[in-house]
Amino acid sequence: MSYAVAIRTADGLVFAADSRTNAGPDHVSSFRKLHVFEKPGEKFIAAAIVGNLSLAQALVAELRGQDGRGRPKKGVDLLEAASMTDAARMTGQAIRALEAQDGGALSRHGVSFDVTVLIGGQIGKERPRLFQVYPAGNFIEAPDETPYLQIGERKYGKAILDQTVMLDSTLGAAVRAAVLSMDATILNNATVGWPADVLALPRDQWRPGYFKRLEPGDAFVTELRRRWADGVRDLITALPDPPGLARPAARTLPR
Amino acid sequence: MSYAVAIRTADGLVFAADSRTNAGPDHVSSFRKLHVFEKPGEKFIAAAIVGNLSLAQALVAELRGQDGRGRPKKGVDLLEAASMTDAARMTGQAIRALEAQDGGALSRHGVSFDVTVLIGGQIGKERPRLFQVYPAGNFIEAPDETPYLQIGERKYGKAILDQTVMLDSTLGAAVRAAVLSMDATILNNATVGWPADVLALPRDQWRPGYFKRLEPGDAFVTELRRRWADGVRDLITALPDPPGLARPAARTLPR
Repeated sequence: MSYAVAIRTADGLVFAADSRTNAGPDHVSSFRKLHVFEKPGEKFIAAAIVGNLSLAQALVAELRGQDGRGRPKKGVDLLEAASMTDAARMTGQAIRALEAQDGGALSRHGVSFDVTVLIGGQIGKERPRLFQVYPAGNFIEAPDETPYLQIGERKYGKAILDQTVMLDSTLGAAVRAAVLSMDATILNNATVGWPADVLALPRDQWRPGYFKRLEPGDAFVTELRRRWADGVRDLITALPDPPGLARPAARTLPR
Repeated sequence: MSYAVAIRTADGLVFAADSRTNAGPDHVSSFRKLHVFEKPGEKFIAAAIVGNLSLAQALVAELRGQDGRGRPKKGVDLLEAASMTDAARMTGQAIRALEAQDGGALSRHGVSFDVTVLIGGQIGKERPRLFQVYPAGNFIEAPDETPYLQIGERKYGKAILDQTVMLDSTLGAAVRAAVLSMDATILNNATVGWPADVLALPRDQWRPGYFKRLEPGDAFVTELRRRWADGVRDLITALPDPPGLARPAARTLPR
């Protein structure tokens, strides 16, 4: 399993992706799942990919317009995209080409064709946009009402996004929500793991405003986790009891 | 799907269970999943049951020592339990008897033998205890380190429990955590639904300190949901930005 989340705000985009891959609980390693495609001052695209690792790597090479040896080849080059919709479509086409190439052999070995992408960025003066591309190559865009998308192990980290993420969130708040969502997910699913790659892309800058591989003991993560835990505990302590429940003798919660 | 959670605190136990049953998205109804067994001043046991509805109903009748027509019959009677471990064991035995009776026919129709129980309560002067009984009739007890158990659609509502529930929580705080965990789950899974039955069992009282069927528009739920949402949003706004991320011009989050 993997977990990646991307958030779209009026100020730009935020991505977070874990790095654990596993083929069984005793076969675990760390691979980057967040990839960037950059043409300074003009285009910046980020893609978080979950699913079968060989397909993810082949897809990244394909989107970079490289063959298996890193040399240029004919075909898609994501930085040729004229708009983010175009980039999502190219990604879908690359996935379909991969399926045509590898799907049959995988299927004969009982391996499902599993690759899903969150792709977002800004191309020229178009506003930053965010898409999810499915294994069939079709895609959706994140709407204003729910300006985030998740792939992989979505459930544990969803409530915090529902509660805190809006189109009007600051980039910093979106980074915090993404990191706390990742932290809750990693805590609960051993097949999602640190380090996590976290990227913030401010609008109209076409370069990262923040791009870091976060380890679980990172000072920012540690402080965020502690202050969030303290704040949430203080909050639930301060909320009212249900009517009719006799309040027990005053007690304070331990930290 | 269903969702039920039970929390054990030093002050007593809290249970919450949704009421939705569905055999497909166009075949939805409401049934009570939280059942109580009471001998005033001596014993109080609560059981939340998820899984196949016919098995849940048969199990309740069995644990009440009734036959199909509500008449007494020989066999288990949960209120005969001498301890909560005994009650968990009796529940497991009743599940095994049900499987012996119905499992074969269900299997022939492609229906899995699916019934899981959270059972907790206080018997005499023994401290309140909480168990989960599996479809195989085996069971576990909630430990001090993680003093809650969840069955059914567990994932969406787990982070809030991890953050707020401790053995030292007040009963009121445990009710709030259970209701907010239920709210997050119902928001995200259409097969879990209101109303929710919520019970608090204070220690050494052998009767409910709070027992209510909560509708989504209930005044307590509404206020809790609003104040929680506001508090969490204020909290994430107040936390620090990651180092290096330029803070955008000051903005306030809309409510």
